Amino acid sequence: MEKSKKTLAQLGTYGLMDHIKNKYISSCSNILAGLDEDAVIEDGDPLKVSSNTLLLEGIHFDLIYTPLQHLGYKAVTATITDILAMNATPLNISISLGIGNKTTLEMTEELMAGISMACKDYNIELAGFTPSSSLTGLTLSLTANGKVSDNDIALRSGASTTDIICITGNLGASLMGLHLLEREKRVLKSKQELKPELEGHEYVLKRQLKPEARLGINSILKEININPSSMIAIKEGVAAALLLLCKASGTGCRIYENKLPIDQNTLKAAKELKFNPLIAALNGGEDYELLFTIPLEEYEKNKDIIPDEITVAGFIADKDKGCRLITSSDQETDLTSPGWGQNNR
Amino acid sequence: MEKSKKTLAQLGTYGLMDHIKNKYISSCSNILAGLDEDAVIEDGDPLKVSSNTLLLEGIHFDLIYTPLQHLGYKAVTATITDILAMNATPLNISISLGIGNKTTLEMTEELMAGISMACKDYNIELAGFTPSSSLTGLTLSLTANGKVSDNDIALRSGASTTDIICITGNLGASLMGLHLLEREKRVLKSKQELKPELEGHEYVLKRQLKPEARLGINSILKEININPSSMIAIKEGVAAALLLLCKASGTGCRIYENKLPIDQNTLKAAKELKFNPLIAALNGGEDYELLFTIPLEEYEKNKDIIPDEITVAGFIADKDKGCRLITSSDQETDLTSPGWGQNNR
Repeated sequence: MEKSKKTLAQLGTYGLMDHIKNKYISSCSNILAGLDEDAVIEDGDPLKVSSNTLLLEGIHFDLIYTPLQHLGYKAVTATITDILAMNATPLNISISLGIGNKTTLEMTEELMAGISMACKDYNIELAGFTPSSSLTGLTLSLTANGKVSDNDIALRSGASTTDIICITGNLGASLMGLHLLEREKRVLKSKQELKPELEGHEYVLKRQLKPEARLGINSILKEININPSSMIAIKEGVAAALLLLCKASGTGCRIYENKLPIDQNTLKAAKELKFNPLIAALNGGEDYELLFTIPLEEYEKNKDIIPDEITVAGFIADKDKGCRLITSSDQETDLTSPGWGQNNR
Repeated sequence: MEKSKKTLAQLGTYGLMDHIKNKYISSCSNILAGLDEDAVIEDGDPLKVSSNTLLLEGIHFDLIYTPLQHLGYKAVTATITDILAMNATPLNISISLGIGNKTTLEMTEELMAGISMACKDYNIELAGFTPSSSLTGLTLSLTANGKVSDNDIALRSGASTTDIICITGNLGASLMGLHLLEREKRVLKSKQELKPELEGHEYVLKRQLKPEARLGINSILKEININPSSMIAIKEGVAAALLLLCKASGTGCRIYENKLPIDQNTLKAAKELKFNPLIAALNGGEDYELLFTIPLEEYEKNKDIIPDEITVAGFIADKDKGCRLITSSDQETDLTSPGWGQNNR
């Protein structure tokens, strides 16, 4: 089957990005943000980095259970996570807003209050705001700008064989929060007088509704003298992040199932939802954590002072070894990710 | 009536922008792109500028008569026009794409072919591409980055009393193109076997469907030793552009009806459509031209060498003189713009 005759579904998200890059190579940079790196990099001293996020009602958020203030906060978190994943410092964000006819001034204010709160928490400026009408529900388009020195920048492409794979925080909580909210929505729709079943799940709900970006990680790494060889944001599951990082670095990897950081609250929610927590961790999405690699010798020197919020979960391997998960029963299985088309390997 | 109790419609676009800036001032930059300037400005040498554009199906484009290749081209034109309006050089663009379920790979390719063609024409790089699903039709979010030296940057706020107002190209053509296409759409819907009435209107249709950004204007101005004191993009009509520029500069203005540049083809289409060409020029939208001011003495020195594509249309006045149009019959009338709420004066 000829490549160009594939459907979008067959290509998958990353296959489409690859396809567009290859087809329009002459107008593409060597590095295409989204596919090759988390953000656009521009010359300068310091280097400038910028990222772009599009959030669509019904796809990226559901206003039935998403408070607008949280949505605003989360939108900023999502956008600056791409800047943080370059080991860079975010400076400002701009927002273009598509406002549907059901949206009132009060709702717009709630949304902007969340954006404003995130700007304060992350110490960045709201540098642009352009509203327009929308026929199709609420739409948020955000641009973040940041800076990073030439010495500090961490690319996806910097990983080498034997580097150690580190993950910040924990994985899968946001997906479990989403599933709980979707369950509530179904209960509400069925109009049964059931007691809401969200109690005791505050942690995973917060991770879904108002996630925090890993703002302090670059200064923590500096303090303990660790210079990440590569870094990527975990936005669509750690599997996708690792596959993209290994592709950019021309390597393979091994990651251990029993070393994946999963919070007790996530395990509890997964059990209640009868959802495999491993799948939540690997392919969950919206974790807004960072994955980075450090050379083995830097790890050996510093392993006793690595803080709790960083977990060592595996290592980079030769490309021909592939990208594989080592299960708790010591079996090896290919890492896979939704959106990862066949032609992307 | 308390300000915060107004509706979005009462505030208007610019009133909402003002309101958000005032309400969230502590997280806002002094300069809010969209309201105070065309683009976000960041320190550096050269200065860095970035702009963000959101294009929504049904609001900003209608796929019934918009070829996807043209849409891609126009999206780039719209985005880099904000960079050009800082008297800056665009360097790259990134695109996030919301792809509805009616969109095929071929359609995505057509769109990207237009974006790629624009990148070539404008000598900029496609630096980012992130697709996602959309429930709500095609959505384009673009970010452009550019650079400009501290000496060259032209802000909206730089105009002074007695400065001359200049306009590039001509106004209102794009709106007339839009009205012709909307008329065709109505004919198609009524299923009458009418001959398409687009013949002879190629110019205004091209201005609507595949507008060109004013890429060369900063080098033309340099060549003839004109240093614009202020500049703004004309995207929602020249009236809105002038009102925003005068607000930022703390001035008023006078603009002459009979000096507004309107192409013969626009007049022809307006006549056929029974549309007042003055309204098309003042409030048309999607012109993607530039409005700038030059000090009177610079104008006097250079007036004989100003090229044809630049029209002198009026002058900056004291703030208390207001922003007014001088009609062909020598009457004065307030400049108004849709989206310009009462509280914004």
